[in-house]
Amino acid sequence: MDEFNLHLTGDIHAITVAHNLVAAAIDARWYHEGRLTDESLQELGLERLGIDSNRITWRRVVDVNDRALRNIVVGLGGSADGRPRESGYDIAVASELMAILALVDGSDYASALKNLRDRCGRVVVGSTKDGVPITLEDLGVAGAVAVLMRETLHPTLMQTIEGQAAFVHAGPFANIAHGNSSILADRMALHLGDYVVTESGFGADMGMEKFFDIKCRVSGLKPDCVVMVATVRALKTHGGGPKVVAGRSLDAVYTEENLPLLRAGIANLEAHIATANRYGVPVVVAINKFPTDTQHEHDLIKEKSIGAGAVAAVTTDHHANGGEGARRLAEAVVEACEQGSEFSYLYPLDQPIKAKIETIASQVYGAAEVEYSTAANRQIDEFEKAGFGYLPICMAKTHLSISHDPGLKGAPSGYTLPVREVRASVGAGFISPLLGEMRTMPGLGTKPAFMQVDIDADGEVIGLF
Amino acid sequence: MDEFNLHLTGDIHAITVAHNLVAAAIDARWYHEGRLTDESLQELGLERLGIDSNRITWRRVVDVNDRALRNIVVGLGGSADGRPRESGYDIAVASELMAILALVDGSDYASALKNLRDRCGRVVVGSTKDGVPITLEDLGVAGAVAVLMRETLHPTLMQTIEGQAAFVHAGPFANIAHGNSSILADRMALHLGDYVVTESGFGADMGMEKFFDIKCRVSGLKPDCVVMVATVRALKTHGGGPKVVAGRSLDAVYTEENLPLLRAGIANLEAHIATANRYGVPVVVAINKFPTDTQHEHDLIKEKSIGAGAVAAVTTDHHANGGEGARRLAEAVVEACEQGSEFSYLYPLDQPIKAKIETIASQVYGAAEVEYSTAANRQIDEFEKAGFGYLPICMAKTHLSISHDPGLKGAPSGYTLPVREVRASVGAGFISPLLGEMRTMPGLGTKPAFMQVDIDADGEVIGLF
Amino acid sequence: MDEFNLHLTGDIHAITVAHNLVAAAIDARWYHEGRLTDESLQELGLERLGIDSNRITWRRVVDVNDRALRNIVVGLGGSADGRPRESGYDIAVASELMAILALVDGSDYASALKNLRDRCGRVVVGSTKDGVPITLEDLGVAGAVAVLMRETLHPTLMQTIEGQAAFVHAGPFANIAHGNSSILADRMALHLGDYVVTESGFGADMGMEKFFDIKCRVSGLKPDCVVMVATVRALKTHGGGPKVVAGRSLDAVYTEENLPLLRAGIANLEAHIATANRYGVPVVVAINKFPTDTQHEHDLIKEKSIGAGAVAAVTTDHHANGGEGARRLAEAVVEACEQGSEFSYLYPLDQPIKAKIETIASQVYGAAEVEYSTAANRQIDEFEKAGFGYLPICMAKTHLSISHDPGLKGAPSGYTLPVREVRASVGAGFISPLLGEMRTMPGLGTKPAFMQVDIDADGEVIGLF
Amino acid sequence: MDEFNLHLTGDIHAITVAHNLVAAAIDARWYHEGRLTDESLQELGLERLGIDSNRITWRRVVDVNDRALRNIVVGLGGSADGRPRESGYDIAVASELMAILALVDGSDYASALKNLRDRCGRVVVGSTKDGVPITLEDLGVAGAVAVLMRETLHPTLMQTIEGQAAFVHAGPFANIAHGNSSILADRMALHLGDYVVTESGFGADMGMEKFFDIKCRVSGLKPDCVVMVATVRALKTHGGGPKVVAGRSLDAVYTEENLPLLRAGIANLEAHIATANRYGVPVVVAINKFPTDTQHEHDLIKEKSIGAGAVAAVTTDHHANGGEGARRLAEAVVEACEQGSEFSYLYPLDQPIKAKIETIASQVYGAAEVEYSTAANRQIDEFEKAGFGYLPICMAKTHLSISHDPGLKGAPSGYTLPVREVRASVGAGFISPLLGEMRTMPGLGTKPAFMQVDIDADGEVIGLF
Repeated sequence: MDEFNLHLTGDIHAITVAHNLVAAAIDARWYHEGRLTDESLQELGLERLGIDSNRITWRRVVDVNDRALRNIVVGLGGSADGRPRESGYDIAVASELMAILALVDGSDYASALKNLRDRCGRVVVGSTKDGVPITLEDLGVAGAVAVLMRETLHPTLMQTIEGQAAFVHAGPFANIAHGNSSILADRMALHLGDYVVTESGFGADMGMEKFFDIKCRVSGLKPDCVVMVATVRALKTHGGGPKVVAGRSLDAVYTEENLPLLRAGIANLEAHIATANRYGVPVVVAINKFPTDTQHEHDLIKEKSIGAGAVAAVTTDHHANGGEGARRLAEAVVEACEQGSEFSYLYPLDQPIKAKIETIASQVYGAAEVEYSTAANRQIDEFEKAGFGYLPICMAKTHLSISHDPGLKGAPSGYTLPVREVRASVGAGFISPLLGEMRTMPGLGTKPAFMQVDIDADGEVIGLF
Repeated sequence: MDEFNLHLTGDIHAITVAHNLVAAAIDARWYHEGRLTDESLQELGLERLGIDSNRITWRRVVDVNDRALRNIVVGLGGSADGRPRESGYDIAVASELMAILALVDGSDYASALKNLRDRCGRVVVGSTKDGVPITLEDLGVAGAVAVLMRETLHPTLMQTIEGQAAFVHAGPFANIAHGNSSILADRMALHLGDYVVTESGFGADMGMEKFFDIKCRVSGLKPDCVVMVATVRALKTHGGGPKVVAGRSLDAVYTEENLPLLRAGIANLEAHIATANRYGVPVVVAINKFPTDTQHEHDLIKEKSIGAGAVAAVTTDHHANGGEGARRLAEAVVEACEQGSEFSYLYPLDQPIKAKIETIASQVYGAAEVEYSTAANRQIDEFEKAGFGYLPICMAKTHLSISHDPGLKGAPSGYTLPVREVRASVGAGFISPLLGEMRTMPGLGTKPAFMQVDIDADGEVIGLF
Repeated sequence: MDEFNLHLTGDIHAITVAHNLVAAAIDARWYHEGRLTDESLQELGLERLGIDSNRITWRRVVDVNDRALRNIVVGLGGSADGRPRESGYDIAVASELMAILALVDGSDYASALKNLRDRCGRVVVGSTKDGVPITLEDLGVAGAVAVLMRETLHPTLMQTIEGQAAFVHAGPFANIAHGNSSILADRMALHLGDYVVTESGFGADMGMEKFFDIKCRVSGLKPDCVVMVATVRALKTHGGGPKVVAGRSLDAVYTEENLPLLRAGIANLEAHIATANRYGVPVVVAINKFPTDTQHEHDLIKEKSIGAGAVAAVTTDHHANGGEGARRLAEAVVEACEQGSEFSYLYPLDQPIKAKIETIASQVYGAAEVEYSTAANRQIDEFEKAGFGYLPICMAKTHLSISHDPGLKGAPSGYTLPVREVRASVGAGFISPLLGEMRTMPGLGTKPAFMQVDIDADGEVIGLF
Repeated sequence: MDEFNLHLTGDIHAITVAHNLVAAAIDARWYHEGRLTDESLQELGLERLGIDSNRITWRRVVDVNDRALRNIVVGLGGSADGRPRESGYDIAVASELMAILALVDGSDYASALKNLRDRCGRVVVGSTKDGVPITLEDLGVAGAVAVLMRETLHPTLMQTIEGQAAFVHAGPFANIAHGNSSILADRMALHLGDYVVTESGFGADMGMEKFFDIKCRVSGLKPDCVVMVATVRALKTHGGGPKVVAGRSLDAVYTEENLPLLRAGIANLEAHIATANRYGVPVVVAINKFPTDTQHEHDLIKEKSIGAGAVAAVTTDHHANGGEGARRLAEAVVEACEQGSEFSYLYPLDQPIKAKIETIASQVYGAAEVEYSTAANRQIDEFEKAGFGYLPICMAKTHLSISHDPGLKGAPSGYTLPVREVRASVGAGFISPLLGEMRTMPGLGTKPAFMQVDIDADGEVIGLF
């Protein structure tokens, strides 16, 4: 997988450099405008943008987990060293530019490149004191960003160990971005095969909802079937089983048959099936088989899945048996696809931002009401005034619960969903509410995994797995 | 040159990620040690490093010019978001890891990889309250850094437009690092050709001095000849000509024959020749011909060069005529190489740090004395106590003057050289005094070059040149 | 009033210096403990306190409105200049030391001084990593603080322009502290007169509630009567009248008879009367007469007040007619006092903190429920663990509404009361929940009042009024 | 001395409040100008000042030693909480307002008040981007500052334990300000007695030089005699004796006769005498007697003092014997005064700033040359452009050496004096070069003196002495 790593690394690098170039451009422009008269700017052929430093929304990114960069003060050191302001870093995959890469569309490279360039121009990084948005076009950096990113438009063609083709392209995280691979890769795949399977990160509440309401809207493509993966262990966790901690031995409830716990947890799966059905797409449940699973447990999942509206529920053991292990799943999917779907979006775009948020909150998350922080209210108001109200919604949310709260397992309902902050990714084309304590920059643990990585006496890399 | 750009970009990316991973590791360790008891650390198999946050010397890097990041406060935001401290960013090419890449040595890939790994382990990032150095090995991140950098060990083989082979490998800036391409590329070239030309950035006071005293010491290779490039225009600038500003038309002194000005400026060239001769290596002066140069001007340079100790001085016009234009230079170099050299270092390693600094200051820069800031004195003292006194010196200095002051043209002498700060690059293997106002992070101008870069209607990149 | 100003200034100065001495002591101790070994500390006769910088709750104070000091980073500049951390300033009257001054009790100066000293020792300024509280006693600064404050224990005896005695002593703001003058002054006055009138800032929801539940609990004194002051204008505002802005002419609804608006606003007065009655103390409403008031308006207020449970409601025009203008009010108060009261506190101290908060929220503020931020939940938990759960509650809240929201006029009900942060003033003896957006540091306006202040040609001060 | 403390405290408080009011006014104006249009400002009757935040020279002050406040970032927290910038605190006695108080002059209270008001108006707190100075008058806060300070103009009349009158008035520190008591107190004393003794802090290099060149220039008063106090111990320290540390027992060289050490140290006294003589004023040396002094030691000091140009040198033991112990000193002073003086200033005001600095450096400090930091050069340039070049010089310097370096004892010469920073106190009327590492904010030690201060069981203050 070396080539893949290198290529993906190259894409992340290009995006990181481009993202930070924008950040440098914003601070530089703000700095120079603070020192120069209108006349001096005009001599240089520049108009005063009038950036309001309190309204700069673009942060910087880095592709390591660096807690210390979450909140920083930049521009210290005196008059030659920029102007002080508060800002911070996000993890690079949370960059709007990564989200853009996955959503660029076009019938060929030239049109995709043009679409990339246009999206870059629309990216909003902040606003003036009067709330007028400032874009990459205004900053004069949209062209350079598109140039830095142009090589990233090429999907990477890989193969599985059995030789089937697979594309790997774009990696926006599903909790803080839209979590889907690229439209370009999907489109290329559709030219090459009869059936295309595309992944959307985490559950039906996260990647799938964003796949339908954001990615499908951009491409105009309609899905024929949803494959929903379930495991006995995850469902037991949702039923109230003890927390699974890496490195510790599993609790007996996970390794022995436990139908009551499983039954309680299936509420979670049922909620996901109901969500998918709401879009009019048939659902096939794929039970990913583990050695300790029992037949009774699989039977229970299948029975409940069909009861909840799935068209099929099959056991799959491709991890042990490769493609052959997934044959029954494939057959079920083909059958489901032939059945036909009546796909529709969850919400129309012309609703107000809050109405769209509340539709997702109630229809997908089971929340009773949505509560907005003072900042969130102000931001939504500004975005609608700026004309961004037509954009779809891309929730930033934990994947450990259908709600915003990792502790609410199963199929939570009746709770209040808190919107802490709202960001606008105008170039990517969505509005991102941040729910609860969701972070956009992870932190390193006390003993990070990189401490195991090294080069052995033969020059081989060790400790990666 | 696309491939080159991509490859070099890949190296810079690997180095940037590795550098920032180290920074994240330092802050994370400091953060966690501040929260955990000795017992908790031991349970994790960790010993308390006791990092003194005031003595962390490792900064972060970014590969865009970002003035606002020169001085920052990190770790703000509360108890989950790290611990506050002052720090800052350097430009990525100033990373010690880039300097390491250029100095890695080995007879094959395996030994080079081992040397890389060893150097990574020796990198010092700060110290305890008692001044005990803390290395990447101590942090447990040396292996991961070497793994991230392992692909960077492969030199890139390019060709000129006439088809001659050329290696491009490593890019430490010559003003703030050692400014030389890699030993590995040189060594590979020596297997492939009769003569190897390797570049060292800026003048004999900068790249050449570091080539001799740092790079040659590591590789054990001995140079046979110095090619010193001169232009009429640069020498006139050193003679007192007006400042040359990009975009404005040249002053007449540069476009018309002006022997007095040229004669005054040749003092600079003479000083560089004297410096090279001090190492026992024959010097060939290559006058890079411009259309407005006159024969009298070239004659004057040649006469003075020979007078100052050069073995030859020839006009070269390869810019206009390609390889043919450099034929006479090549012949002069071959002749000089056959003459033999008696290469010796400027200073022995076992002198105290200050003695080595002062040798370079007086012998190469013409300074009368060296003045150390309070911080510099403390740092030198700590480095010697920590056992780093044996390392060679790598001055960080402007390239616009032989001195530290860009305004001192020609061959300055009798001045005081200020040492503002001293850093130790133990993995790369040198001590870096920062002279005067030298910056390790450039800033963007009011109208940066990226504003010209874009993609045209045909999808072609414009504005790069 | 010059003397008063000077004396009050002296008290504020002593408190400001003492408060900031504590702040300096905390940062200094944290700084030195970070540099010294346990052995070095012991040589100095000191034990390691182990202050957790993230849990320091003591801020600094200044007695001017200084917005720029609300949030600061201190300790920058390098290893000699302290350790960096986030902190900020409050306005000096919000200092816990000012609240202490008003709550010190004793039968004579000696016992009051001792009580002051004891309270200083109990002041909690932060905690260790394990949540163990750190007090002024632990820091060794309690004695010095008491010494700096000892002169402040003397109440200032003033006289009105008609010659009646009046004490002026202590000034904790009623929105962010308890808003009552000192127990010592009240006690001294009780030795000197038959009836003592003491003021408690703002409405029955603020100063009065704190007077009853905090100040009376400390002194053991029981009030005989509540005098509740009302104006037609304020009640009309609560009925929905337009905002009154200093410097602009009054809207006609305030200068002409408007019984519907007044009737709507009286809901606010009725709520305050109900609150006072809940404590078992008879209420006399004093209508502060303005020239534009009409008889119908005063009649309506009186009728409604009696209806809501006041024992009397009288018009008073002491502003125009001095003591004579307040004669009828005085007679009504004497009569009410003779009637007897059955004073009881709103809540017992042995309830959990949240129960006490929720009692005030529902019984006094009319809130339907209380919502705690994540920080508030954590703080309450820590305070109860530290043994501070027994303290009474001192809400920090706007005075512009009975609720936390200045926009909710009249007698709001059914709303959710947000608790943003909770502080513990263990020396003063109360827990302070901060409601909503309540600030503890005001800011200067664009054209502050001080711009009018100057000295005229005769050396007289102008612009103060 | 209680009354004195209270009064002095009152003055410091008034100055502290006034100083910080100015700071708040600057940040508030900068903040509001950043949010408002020119039109909005004009509606308020304000013109845009255009403060350059990088050129704000006014810091904040506090009257406790608080290391953590030396360097801070203010204005953090978001758009309502000011604008971020780097700043810091000085100790309150270093406020320019304290220096002003000591230099206010006038024949009566009215004229002194007017002078105070005028000086306040001239105080410069920063400048615009174009370097135009911004004063308290521009900010509209000069009147308010004068009003806050008006009570401070009254000198405090005290008496010694023998009943002699003494004024205590103003306390600018002698290392970082001018170190003299007030002109108003001196002038009042001259009306009341035949001889007035006024103190100027530290040695002839510090308080005396500033007394002559700054204070005497303002008042026009001419001194008749210099009383120079010497002790055997201090002179031995200057001769190379070991450092005297509070709390440790004295080294034997200080408690036993040691003429060689004393002789070496007298070089320091001789230098001070020479400095005083340079002003044309007769010098009387007062040897402050200690029990361990020997007759030989006093004889040596007397002999050398006369040799160096003193008109008399007498032993004085007022510490043991009160006024009687100083009788011989008084007689010598009367005699010296009758002899007449020919007082002249050290430098004329119309020299450039650097010439004045260099005159003091060479004539008083014995320095061979002066070295200016980049910042100092820029500041001097700006001050001269702004028209402040005519002001006298007030060096900020250690009192532990005649030089800038506490380690250079005796009468140092031939060294380079470093000027790190230059401040302009235009209201007080001087330019302040900061020499070397001089700090304007002290720090608390590990075990500060306040830890001894407390109130004992009888209510008495303990631990102050």
